[in-house]
Amino acid sequence: MYRSHTCGELRIINKGTQVTLAGWVQTVRKLGASITFVDLRDRYGITQLLFNEELTKQLEENPLGREFVLQTTGTVNERSNKNGNIPTGEIEIAVTSFKILNKSAVPPFTIQDDTDGGDDLRMKYRYLDLRRNAVKKNLELRYAVNRAARNYLHQQGFMDIETPFLIKSTPEGARDFVVPSRMNPGQFYALPQSPQTFKQLLMVSGYDRYYQVVKCFRDEDLRADRQPEFTQIDCEMAFVEQEDILNMFEGMIKSIFKEVKGIEYAETVQRMTWEDAMWNYGNDKPDIRFDMKVLNLKKPATVYTDKQDNAALINDAGFKVFDEAETVVAISVPGCSEYSRKQTDELTEWVKRPQIGMKGLVFIKVNADGTYKSSVDKFYPEEKLKAIADATNANAGDLILILAGAEERTRKSISDLRMEMAGRLGLRKDTEFKLLWVLDFPLFEYDEEGNRWVARHHPFTSPKPEQIETMINNNPVIDNAAEYLKHPYASIKANAYDMVLNGNEIGGGSIRIFQRELQEKMFAALGMNEEEQLHKFGFLLGAFEYGAPPHGGIAFGFDRLCSILGGSESIRDFIAFPKNNSGRDVMLDAPATIDEKQFEELQIKLNLKS
Amino acid sequence: MYRSHTCGELRIINKGTQVTLAGWVQTVRKLGASITFVDLRDRYGITQLLFNEELTKQLEENPLGREFVLQTTGTVNERSNKNGNIPTGEIEIAVTSFKILNKSAVPPFTIQDDTDGGDDLRMKYRYLDLRRNAVKKNLELRYAVNRAARNYLHQQGFMDIETPFLIKSTPEGARDFVVPSRMNPGQFYALPQSPQTFKQLLMVSGYDRYYQVVKCFRDEDLRADRQPEFTQIDCEMAFVEQEDILNMFEGMIKSIFKEVKGIEYAETVQRMTWEDAMWNYGNDKPDIRFDMKVLNLKKPATVYTDKQDNAALINDAGFKVFDEAETVVAISVPGCSEYSRKQTDELTEWVKRPQIGMKGLVFIKVNADGTYKSSVDKFYPEEKLKAIADATNANAGDLILILAGAEERTRKSISDLRMEMAGRLGLRKDTEFKLLWVLDFPLFEYDEEGNRWVARHHPFTSPKPEQIETMINNNPVIDNAAEYLKHPYASIKANAYDMVLNGNEIGGGSIRIFQRELQEKMFAALGMNEEEQLHKFGFLLGAFEYGAPPHGGIAFGFDRLCSILGGSESIRDFIAFPKNNSGRDVMLDAPATIDEKQFEELQIKLNLKS
Repeated sequence: MYRSHTCGELRIINKGTQVTLAGWVQTVRKLGASITFVDLRDRYGITQLLFNEELTKQLEENPLGREFVLQTTGTVNERSNKNGNIPTGEIEIAVTSFKILNKSAVPPFTIQDDTDGGDDLRMKYRYLDLRRNAVKKNLELRYAVNRAARNYLHQQGFMDIETPFLIKSTPEGARDFVVPSRMNPGQFYALPQSPQTFKQLLMVSGYDRYYQVVKCFRDEDLRADRQPEFTQIDCEMAFVEQEDILNMFEGMIKSIFKEVKGIEYAETVQRMTWEDAMWNYGNDKPDIRFDMKVLNLKKPATVYTDKQDNAALINDAGFKVFDEAETVVAISVPGCSEYSRKQTDELTEWVKRPQIGMKGLVFIKVNADGTYKSSVDKFYPEEKLKAIADATNANAGDLILILAGAEERTRKSISDLRMEMAGRLGLRKDTEFKLLWVLDFPLFEYDEEGNRWVARHHPFTSPKPEQIETMINNNPVIDNAAEYLKHPYASIKANAYDMVLNGNEIGGGSIRIFQRELQEKMFAALGMNEEEQLHKFGFLLGAFEYGAPPHGGIAFGFDRLCSILGGSESIRDFIAFPKNNSGRDVMLDAPATIDEKQFEELQIKLNLKS
Repeated sequence: MYRSHTCGELRIINKGTQVTLAGWVQTVRKLGASITFVDLRDRYGITQLLFNEELTKQLEENPLGREFVLQTTGTVNERSNKNGNIPTGEIEIAVTSFKILNKSAVPPFTIQDDTDGGDDLRMKYRYLDLRRNAVKKNLELRYAVNRAARNYLHQQGFMDIETPFLIKSTPEGARDFVVPSRMNPGQFYALPQSPQTFKQLLMVSGYDRYYQVVKCFRDEDLRADRQPEFTQIDCEMAFVEQEDILNMFEGMIKSIFKEVKGIEYAETVQRMTWEDAMWNYGNDKPDIRFDMKVLNLKKPATVYTDKQDNAALINDAGFKVFDEAETVVAISVPGCSEYSRKQTDELTEWVKRPQIGMKGLVFIKVNADGTYKSSVDKFYPEEKLKAIADATNANAGDLILILAGAEERTRKSISDLRMEMAGRLGLRKDTEFKLLWVLDFPLFEYDEEGNRWVARHHPFTSPKPEQIETMINNNPVIDNAAEYLKHPYASIKANAYDMVLNGNEIGGGSIRIFQRELQEKMFAALGMNEEEQLHKFGFLLGAFEYGAPPHGGIAFGFDRLCSILGGSESIRDFIAFPKNNSGRDVMLDAPATIDEKQFEELQIKLNLKS
């Protein structure tokens, strides 16, 4: 061993001990000719080294630079000038000998929390970026979450069972990465998008509580914060109903909170139907750290819900914008009634940005003196403004923001606006955590292009038990595209659940179909003929013939969960070697060309478009 | 939850309790019209159910078959006819109601330890095979090993850090699996053969103790018991020397022994140089559960060792077979001097099999009465036979077996013969575990075809510190192929180590090169020019510029380790969803063809050789 102690462990009680440390030179400070201070860094901390006059002379012959690897022996002394900011700040090592284990070129950026390195540079030299304390803390948090999840699941009787990575391509929605098989020319493996079917087979096999912390792969165009390979905490249970899964996995997340963040999440995890989430928050993963619920002033005649809007509050006022809009929604933003013209104009510009795409913004100021002031005073007298304000539960001093337009975009926009205003008001606190279960999702989504149904979650999700008959007994074909919402399938709810943390979906799952007949009906509903069903999922349909138990599960997005717990927006900060938005590892310079010999052996060739 | 208890937990103390169980029907025994016994099975055990006359009637309308999924409620009763073989054998459930949760077709083989299913059938229906207790025990053992390894490493301060799966193809020795990149047309990712370079980068980054239980991939022609995807316990440490690694990881294996098998492995783990292993056992992974060391009667003039043979014992006897052989080696097999002619003939046939490939077998019987009898009596009088026998440390009653031929094959054959005889004598006990470190491997192997050096372990392994100069200061080019053993590189030993368990290599690793100059020299020695070095490993050479610490590590073959601990020869029995010898998953029927659309998106096409 090159060291007797780490750079993070020596304290005043070690005073007088002879020690050997090894680590990286963080800083060198020479005080005249007689003394040199060196901060030596390793994974565990920083320790100050003191080089006396003689050793300072030796250093002149072998000068130390930043990031040099140094081994040093000396005695632990009490510091005269103590540093209360670091745990080793009371001591220093009076060096008696040292050895430079390796030199370092000048790093392309500073190895500090507030580095001067840009994103590209840091990714290219990721091995240096990983030395920064900020990144190290993220990876330590990731490991702590991993441990906490595993320990909880182990205690609950779950077994880690590894599922294969070289499987069969069955693209449904997302694209598979494929791997040519040399031993089976002309054939390809696929990398798993998730171990979904395998974990279901394990339930059929009787392993009743399975988990894995496992890499998954999706060949999708990368948006910010999507990675082609990502990690899931993947779980499945047999002989359970939805309620069992919800209890088990809120237990897991609470256990992670406790182990990793020291947070005792004692309160009951809230639950909300998908319909309520959409209606009250415009979003299926609402952030409930703050209130600011959506008031539905107007909804289209045919929509996902039969909840009642408040159209009476805005109708018959001659305001064409509202009259012609499909949907009108409002939120009341606390304490913003004093917004200046400049501020409301800026907000209007904000909702008109292409990412939001609204045509304008209506506001009502609920003034502290009890008066109302609106951008639509012309159409709505004060008592009407008051009625709207009351319906949003506004208080004096609040600012009501109203959006109007096509249903889907307007609903999404009010959700975005709600999040934006909460951000501006400091209501989205990194240190506050609010869990939520969103339940009762629709089983199917309507695909306009194909005039057909697609699975909202995945094809293995079961309908609510009381709707199985509806599903079995109806033809999935949509005769009248305009009235697809009247098709019996439109109202089938799934036995599915998402776990939402601070407005992010961190996990999702469902009770699965376990009957062959129902599974076949599902595949057929998604437009798969019998041959295709057997080719892609014959093994699963076969397995359902031999005593498949009722089962269900959930998968957590491990990267995302870590980033939220770490108070960051970016999952990349929590992955040791992430890829950029073009799916490239700029450090490795991968992907790359391969040798002619590899093409020959695999019996494939390129077919590049011009 | 579909159950209040599992099928493995009820005992006599639960007598009188109302319970609900769910599981699979193992057997149905109807006693006349009045009573039916059903054995209900789940992951945790088997519980006997008793159906009374009324319920037996109900069963007639809904007959139960093997592997039906049944939910049943009833009362725990004491059994009149107790079964001491199972933990639940003192009780049974007097059923009050039941529900068939799912039916089952008749399984294609019996779900029992001694199943009637052949290998192909069981792999096709792997989800049923996994129900068998024999397979379940293997996966449980695998999980226990996984837990034990993780817990030990965690306690020792190691961090699980995930490394990427989509990396760059840098084939060295084994072939990479490659993955076409849709977003970077014409370019490919590779799946990692191991996280080798990443874990080294993590050491450069300062993470000083890393581990991962991780899938690795090699596109090699599959021999029995090789899988294209396999799992490693992968570890790396910084600021360590070989001794530190040996101590740390024999600690890990001892901890696994204790946690998984309840074995306190108190003895010191033996160590042996590679040279001694080859000389005394004919093999670099000797099984030391038994002795039977090899006696070297003759060795070629130029060979890996300068140890002295015992040629005087066989020379000048006029026996051409020995005189013309490059190598003559012997073992003394305890207690087999009474072997009949038929038995020695059979052994002779055994060594002549193509897998062994020897031309014949010479034996000397050390009779109980002190006389000697040999197949070469004609050439060797009794005192010469005695001298040979004494040199092998034979006792009265032993049978000495002698092989002669070309060095490499003969040495391998005596090793195979030693293992075979030990097997016949019952000396290779499943329940006995003997660890061994094999050390001081040659750094290079000679590649006859290319007349060049290849890395015996991998190109990142460092030479012994005292041989670094030899490596730096000599030209790797081999001028005289016939005398390659005289090249200075032939005698360079590696800072590498293998852990051997019962004659199987379960882990291997090395202290790594951490200096750019030495790494470049190594790449050059392996025939890589500068351009190729930079293209393939530029990131690593770059990392070595910025303060790389001394480091080393090890990787354990997790599948193999589990199979040995489980007392099995086959790693496939310890993998939930293994592939067959053609790399196929016969259950999924993968690999398979992919869609035209996938080819188009990936911009590749097939190029099949007629």
